[in-house]
Amino acid sequence: MSIEFHVEARAGTARAGRLITAHGEIATPVFMPVGTQASVKAVPQDTLEELGVQILLGNTYHLYLRPGVETVRKLGGLHGFMSWPRAILTDSGGFQVFSLNELRKVTEGGVTFRSHLDGGSHFFSPESAMAAQIGLGADIVMAFDECTEYPADRARAKTSMELTLRWAERSKKHFEEHKHEVPWSAASAFRLSASGGDHVGTAAPSTGSGQAPGCPVERSSAAFDSGTTVVEEQSGLRPDGQPGAAVPTCHGKTQSLFGIVQGGMDLELRKESALRTIEIGFPGYGIGGLSVGEPRELTREVVEATLEHLPTDKPRYLMGVGTPEEIVEYARLGVDMMDCVLPTRAARHGLLFTSEGRVSIKQARYAQDQGPLDPNCACRVCQRYSRAYLRHLYAANEVLAQVLNTIHNLSFYLDTMRRVRHSIRLGEESRCF
Amino acid sequence: MSIEFHVEARAGTARAGRLITAHGEIATPVFMPVGTQASVKAVPQDTLEELGVQILLGNTYHLYLRPGVETVRKLGGLHGFMSWPRAILTDSGGFQVFSLNELRKVTEGGVTFRSHLDGGSHFFSPESAMAAQIGLGADIVMAFDECTEYPADRARAKTSMELTLRWAERSKKHFEEHKHEVPWSAASAFRLSASGGDHVGTAAPSTGSGQAPGCPVERSSAAFDSGTTVVEEQSGLRPDGQPGAAVPTCHGKTQSLFGIVQGGMDLELRKESALRTIEIGFPGYGIGGLSVGEPRELTREVVEATLEHLPTDKPRYLMGVGTPEEIVEYARLGVDMMDCVLPTRAARHGLLFTSEGRVSIKQARYAQDQGPLDPNCACRVCQRYSRAYLRHLYAANEVLAQVLNTIHNLSFYLDTMRRVRHSIRLGEESRCF
Repeated sequence: MSIEFHVEARAGTARAGRLITAHGEIATPVFMPVGTQASVKAVPQDTLEELGVQILLGNTYHLYLRPGVETVRKLGGLHGFMSWPRAILTDSGGFQVFSLNELRKVTEGGVTFRSHLDGGSHFFSPESAMAAQIGLGADIVMAFDECTEYPADRARAKTSMELTLRWAERSKKHFEEHKHEVPWSAASAFRLSASGGDHVGTAAPSTGSGQAPGCPVERSSAAFDSGTTVVEEQSGLRPDGQPGAAVPTCHGKTQSLFGIVQGGMDLELRKESALRTIEIGFPGYGIGGLSVGEPRELTREVVEATLEHLPTDKPRYLMGVGTPEEIVEYARLGVDMMDCVLPTRAARHGLLFTSEGRVSIKQARYAQDQGPLDPNCACRVCQRYSRAYLRHLYAANEVLAQVLNTIHNLSFYLDTMRRVRHSIRLGEESRCF
Repeated sequence: MSIEFHVEARAGTARAGRLITAHGEIATPVFMPVGTQASVKAVPQDTLEELGVQILLGNTYHLYLRPGVETVRKLGGLHGFMSWPRAILTDSGGFQVFSLNELRKVTEGGVTFRSHLDGGSHFFSPESAMAAQIGLGADIVMAFDECTEYPADRARAKTSMELTLRWAERSKKHFEEHKHEVPWSAASAFRLSASGGDHVGTAAPSTGSGQAPGCPVERSSAAFDSGTTVVEEQSGLRPDGQPGAAVPTCHGKTQSLFGIVQGGMDLELRKESALRTIEIGFPGYGIGGLSVGEPRELTREVVEATLEHLPTDKPRYLMGVGTPEEIVEYARLGVDMMDCVLPTRAARHGLLFTSEGRVSIKQARYAQDQGPLDPNCACRVCQRYSRAYLRHLYAANEVLAQVLNTIHNLSFYLDTMRRVRHSIRLGEESRCF
């Protein structure tokens, strides 16, 4: 069984729900912090847990280059490697291949590019991107797509969209044939944690901190000697109808592949891309190719138009957004999942988001400001430190500045989404959303 | 009343005891992490508390330059500024003035030097170093001394020693005349924590986390409207016998000034320096001018010889040491306090101290090592993460590498000293130390 998704409340076009993955439940709409190289920069995993992060994002492009998929696979996949017991989503590498590499060559087969680390030549294809993501073992993986550049005329956007659709078919095929290779096993050394989040219900057993590790993996074929309960697994059938290898599950869920809608800024192409991606069939849909330099009003227009054509009973994931105002806006339009480096990257540059607006903590005006960063924030940074201290840390180039700034910004984003979910649920009851 | 110091157990020349300061008790022998710019690099204060740090060191030279003494004073001294409710010791700036500045000019008055930040010209004297430290408000401050360079012939070491003694007199005079200016007040916004440490007894009240802030300051003169109990304060007398300004205390303790023994590597000069520093009279004594390039055997020789002449009922603070082996060695000789950047600096370079020896985590051999960094370590890093992950973080230049590596190294150092204190106490009972 792939992921489950339940919409539990509505307010206009907004929905509040639960996304049930192999590594726990996620309350939606959700903002996913980005852990590019298997680390949400500067923040230890226990702090992420305390903040209530239920799902984070890893970048396949970066991890493929360093430390490499095989290393991560051997350490039990990303969950084991980075000791993160909750959910993980990986992107396919498609975006970075385009954004980080000027010298690249796109063919029907895939993309040849040079590593930004050492200039070495590499090739990504739908098949290799699926293989990498299966090896990394995230709960949700993304189809290998072409992120259409901006601006792009209609002909170019259409050509790109068609390529993405062909690559989506290949992604799904390879995924279905190889998903049994996901490195989830009882031997993976990580600890399940039941703490944090909205407590809308979690599938993860309450082992508490410091308890015995291990994901109780059920396999659908008695041939696997796992010593755990055998579970019926209908996805053990291959596309050709033959029985396939048993697919590892965790808490009854397999790894899941989402498709991605492209089409540039053309609303008709977006509709076509959505319908044809749905035809291929995925348990969830990403909206890609946005926040690539277009005006914000255009982003909204395209998001709204695309959402119209995506199923309401499946999660809709808007990739790569946004500011605190934008994530609220898109959640209200009906987006269920978002990710962005903004809170973490801005934090490292001293740009902090607060309930009273943006604070550029490096400014001299804060040098003797005794007050908390955000008087309305309950995070450990605002509860303990003054603006003057945060400003000093940043000016003095102290590592702690990155740590504390990031903790606050993440807390602010997560708190923002928490309020959105709450107001959606209230909206249904009181009709005043 | 200045600090209290109680030796509670002996084993040979080693002593285990309690140092009672204005901001809590410290179990000795103690290793003090260095928080150079009001931050122990990469480690948030709550983590320091969890590790059991009872006292940390701040560098006056750095803080004087940035953010400046006035800023810190206005934020309630270092305790308020960095939100550290436990004990703090500051050095006088003397060492950095010598170690960080090639162009400096020493006169009887003090030292002219150039800021390593912007090349601006500054002047440090015993008086200004005391004023700065009083403004920063640490529990223990150090006399302004000249750290004799190494090597130095006897004549040079003697001249330097004599200067340090004259500066020690001036330091004490200025300190006694101005210690009432320490910025400790009920208005300082920080929270007292009763957690951590050896629980040999703590003077700090158990306010718990999140409770009301404020150091209950008692002042010795009824003229101060503090609303708290008036405490007899004998140090309210000035050197000329006139009643001086009331000296702020916290939990009945005032800020305290330690003297520093110099004399180079000459054992006779060291003896003379010790006796003449004792003559001036301080509640505790630093042993300076060591770990400046001399062979380790010589360090030990000089430490041993110096300790012979220092009072046994006062804390002896060996400045700037050492490796895990060295701090154990010096503790057994009878040193009560030590500080060093080694655990924190080495951590940031991937050099980790473990019960099985030093681990240079960057090495390829760890790339797929699933085991913990130190199987005998109970710290959160060793309890959660694999060597492979730590190695990846370091190789990938992730900030989290600095955070986790530092947490482990500090934990190792603090645990090492905990064992030493324990073995000293056992040694007294079982006579097998």
